[in-house]
Amino acid sequence: MKRTCYVGKVNASYVEQRITLQGWVNRSRPLGGLIFFDLRDREGMLQVQVPPDSEAFETAEKLRSEYVVQVEGVLKYRPENQRKGGTADFELWADQVTILNEARTLPFQVDGIVDDNVKEDLRLKYRYLDLRRSDMQNNLRLRHKITTAIYKFLDSEGFISVETPFLTKSTPEGARDFLVPSRLNPGTFYALPQSPQLFKQLLMVSNLDRYFQIARCFRDEALRSDRQPDFTQLDIEMSFVDQEDILTLCERLMDYIFQTVMGMSIPVPFERLTYEEAMSKYGSDKPDLRFGCEIIEASHVFQNTEFKAFSTALAEGGVVKFLVAPELTRKQIEELERVAKQNGAKGLAWVRLEQGRLTGGISKFITAEQSDILTGYMYEGSTLLFGAGPFKHAVSALGAVRLALRDMFGWVKGNETFNFAWVTDFPQLDFDEESGTWTYMHHPFTSPNPADVHLFGTEGQGKIRAQAYDLVLNGFEVGGGSIRIHDPETQRKMFEAIGLSREEAQSKFGFFLEALEYGTPPHGGIAWGLDRLVMLMARTESIREVIAFPKNNRGVDLMVDAPGEVDQRQLEELFIEVKLPQE
Amino acid sequence: MKRTCYVGKVNASYVEQRITLQGWVNRSRPLGGLIFFDLRDREGMLQVQVPPDSEAFETAEKLRSEYVVQVEGVLKYRPENQRKGGTADFELWADQVTILNEARTLPFQVDGIVDDNVKEDLRLKYRYLDLRRSDMQNNLRLRHKITTAIYKFLDSEGFISVETPFLTKSTPEGARDFLVPSRLNPGTFYALPQSPQLFKQLLMVSNLDRYFQIARCFRDEALRSDRQPDFTQLDIEMSFVDQEDILTLCERLMDYIFQTVMGMSIPVPFERLTYEEAMSKYGSDKPDLRFGCEIIEASHVFQNTEFKAFSTALAEGGVVKFLVAPELTRKQIEELERVAKQNGAKGLAWVRLEQGRLTGGISKFITAEQSDILTGYMYEGSTLLFGAGPFKHAVSALGAVRLALRDMFGWVKGNETFNFAWVTDFPQLDFDEESGTWTYMHHPFTSPNPADVHLFGTEGQGKIRAQAYDLVLNGFEVGGGSIRIHDPETQRKMFEAIGLSREEAQSKFGFFLEALEYGTPPHGGIAWGLDRLVMLMARTESIREVIAFPKNNRGVDLMVDAPGEVDQRQLEELFIEVKLPQE
Repeated sequence: MKRTCYVGKVNASYVEQRITLQGWVNRSRPLGGLIFFDLRDREGMLQVQVPPDSEAFETAEKLRSEYVVQVEGVLKYRPENQRKGGTADFELWADQVTILNEARTLPFQVDGIVDDNVKEDLRLKYRYLDLRRSDMQNNLRLRHKITTAIYKFLDSEGFISVETPFLTKSTPEGARDFLVPSRLNPGTFYALPQSPQLFKQLLMVSNLDRYFQIARCFRDEALRSDRQPDFTQLDIEMSFVDQEDILTLCERLMDYIFQTVMGMSIPVPFERLTYEEAMSKYGSDKPDLRFGCEIIEASHVFQNTEFKAFSTALAEGGVVKFLVAPELTRKQIEELERVAKQNGAKGLAWVRLEQGRLTGGISKFITAEQSDILTGYMYEGSTLLFGAGPFKHAVSALGAVRLALRDMFGWVKGNETFNFAWVTDFPQLDFDEESGTWTYMHHPFTSPNPADVHLFGTEGQGKIRAQAYDLVLNGFEVGGGSIRIHDPETQRKMFEAIGLSREEAQSKFGFFLEALEYGTPPHGGIAWGLDRLVMLMARTESIREVIAFPKNNRGVDLMVDAPGEVDQRQLEELFIEVKLPQE
Repeated sequence: MKRTCYVGKVNASYVEQRITLQGWVNRSRPLGGLIFFDLRDREGMLQVQVPPDSEAFETAEKLRSEYVVQVEGVLKYRPENQRKGGTADFELWADQVTILNEARTLPFQVDGIVDDNVKEDLRLKYRYLDLRRSDMQNNLRLRHKITTAIYKFLDSEGFISVETPFLTKSTPEGARDFLVPSRLNPGTFYALPQSPQLFKQLLMVSNLDRYFQIARCFRDEALRSDRQPDFTQLDIEMSFVDQEDILTLCERLMDYIFQTVMGMSIPVPFERLTYEEAMSKYGSDKPDLRFGCEIIEASHVFQNTEFKAFSTALAEGGVVKFLVAPELTRKQIEELERVAKQNGAKGLAWVRLEQGRLTGGISKFITAEQSDILTGYMYEGSTLLFGAGPFKHAVSALGAVRLALRDMFGWVKGNETFNFAWVTDFPQLDFDEESGTWTYMHHPFTSPNPADVHLFGTEGQGKIRAQAYDLVLNGFEVGGGSIRIHDPETQRKMFEAIGLSREEAQSKFGFFLEALEYGTPPHGGIAWGLDRLVMLMARTESIREVIAFPKNNRGVDLMVDAPGEVDQRQLEELFIEVKLPQE
């Protein structure tokens, strides 16, 4: 016996018709001699009533929440004053009720939003029940719609989806690999891919021209609310393009997704900032641009200051910068100082404007001349918050304080706006002060800006700009990519710059260097973190809300029993013993 | 500088226009003082000529095969008598040639079909070059088109794509798992999924109602031409359906794929055979129906035979059956006998019809009465080939002989037709004669035919029919599925039937048995082997032709160096030492 339609799709055209529905009993209650229950399926809910003289009554008396039933009867309008729109305009007068399956009492309710008292551990253990809740269903459907939109758009643009291998050689993405022992070659391991990076570049060598993949990637890293050890990325690569082509393609794709999935337009092109600008103005390479509160340069103001922290910072080549905050209580300032300190600052200097004069904090160190300049940025009651020190330290601390102010004053509510931006011109190389070595900022296949290539191997190689770009949404990095190196000579220079000898480069990436020598076109691409994008579009704060079966907080799959004690050393011994190929 | 269009998309609208193209030099040759070369990209080829007075001439002289170039110039029609249609109607008179990248001499040619002398090992080593060949590009594009069609069709039918986990507990699919050591829990392993079977059933418990996924699956098995250790399946599951709903859905989806991808219709509904019929008529549960040559029952004919092999078979409860073959030489009969023996037969009895009389082979044992019946199936020169023994042995041997006849006489040419069929009513249980135990035929979650459930636990449980079905294309299994058990009681009966104690069932599948108790709807599904389907649609005979980066014959990824010696024992010791959780 087939259902006439989904419960949630019942409409006026069925009124006075005999229909068959199937679904779950949401709640059942006797009332005035009748039995009422709500029948629920994926698409919605409908009230069912079973009169006492119906042959279905006896069965209906047995119904409990979450029983699976088939119901037959005639659809009626509800009394006019009880109609609430949609399926709530109707009720089914059932004369046949068949129990398709029974249900034990659930560990938590699945109608409506989840009770805050239900611990996430319990929700994860009974994930298959948690997924019955409509907000989880909506998140899964949102994810599906986004994926489908990606296929439709990229297919129409001539992109070819290609599946790349899972059991492969270690790829150089900088995180820890998950390993798979090879049965055929004892003591050796496959690595699960951290990304399809090398494969997609090889596909460009293959003249595929435009590639995409919804790709599962694996990094053996700690769980966080916005990170799972296996995650999904939209992976894109294109030949014969420059950076602008890729940014434009992404903007059009994102706009298409928002239009088809959310029914809304987003402003394109997205705002573009260089890495330098993003760090200067927002103290972050993934700035939240939904509010202002930019960091303001004040080094020139304090050239001759008597305030020790500032003068030292400037003498050592650092900077002094500030944010303009609203009126702050002493407690709020302490809270913000804590944030600044957590982000590398030694303290958080401040002054307030009261009745036209700077007071409190470091006001006694401020000269009349300095005050004239500073008060120009202020309004009555407002507070300046200072950062001083080496550029990166000062702006990072103020960037963190800026976000704390956002949360403190609720400048961003309900994730209602979607503010995309590109951050471009990342540095090609990063100097690791601890080890005293240079490493890549994005990955070692990123092309430097041709104007800066001459700096390779010089003291100024930290200034080489990469043709690399990140896509930022509401303060989260949701994508990153680059134009790639396509000639073996530049690739070798890059390996040298990060301290790989010719022999090491050959042994690690020999096959790839060889591939570059058979006619590789200029190419570049990007990867979007799909989980995080869905999380933001679903307006939720945990990535676990948009993954059907996430790992739980203990780092194990919800279908695996709770683990025993963790003994890191023991595992590392095991690994050494079986000789990892990549070490 | 952007390309005006793909090389292969150049058309009459560009004639006399100045255009810019980018691509690979296919072949370059001097001719009459000019330099001619073919420029190639993903979409096609175009002839370029560079006159000696052009400033591009010096660069053009340097061009070698597979250089990547940018070419600018004016598009012209070729002389009328040289036009061959498409881009071969035109040529580009180039005045600017820029080398974007050089290329070493390739290890093999990439234009046209691959030279048979090029070993597959070499093609796999330089896979990125092999993929430049147009037939490989076509295969990858075919695969992409099929995938995209699946998304479009299933989305329009209300299916929701869901990604299921990769790092999970071992799933009971009967093959060897690939394992991933857990760093957090030394000595324990994740298994890579052999299929998303349990997850998709849990999604039905979750009321997702219609699920699909293009899912990568992993089985640590030997490579074959039609099997890779990680493979892709289209995975589908539906709630509130019966078998007929799933078969119909698949037929509509397959028809949609053939219409949109191949521009052709396939006959629906597909032919349906029960397992019993398929085995009786074709000696296979994946019969090739592109030709007739059915197996014919002859047990009744030989009730009183003096031919020992037949009388013994019948006395032991077996059967005698035959195929009608064309006229066969002695050598052909020997070849077919070899096939029969490889498939479990002791020999291959035969007779021929010559001038109206049975001759040769076992003709001297055939009575006049038997002859009257047998010759009714024959024509002058035709040969009967007999199988005798237990039913399954006899038909399996004749089934193999039937396929050998197909290949011997070329009954099926060029894989031009696509003949789909459903095989239904598989047995629920299979008796393993070696171990003397019962096991599942499909998997342990398959629902038995309700009419046969009473046979569980009886001697007749081998006769229980499963609600299981395979999708067969041209003699290959391309899909398989079943209606699932949705009540815990039947699930427990099934576990008992295959010898799992209540405790074992609880320890292996406790979480799943528990899930069944919270209101599980009737549900069922199917998985299509996507690689194999693409292989057949691409009309190729190796699955490696439709996978971008397959593993090679030595079982290692093409990006991993050649392995050392295989020492199975050594690996197994390693595994025992670290204590697999599932043993």
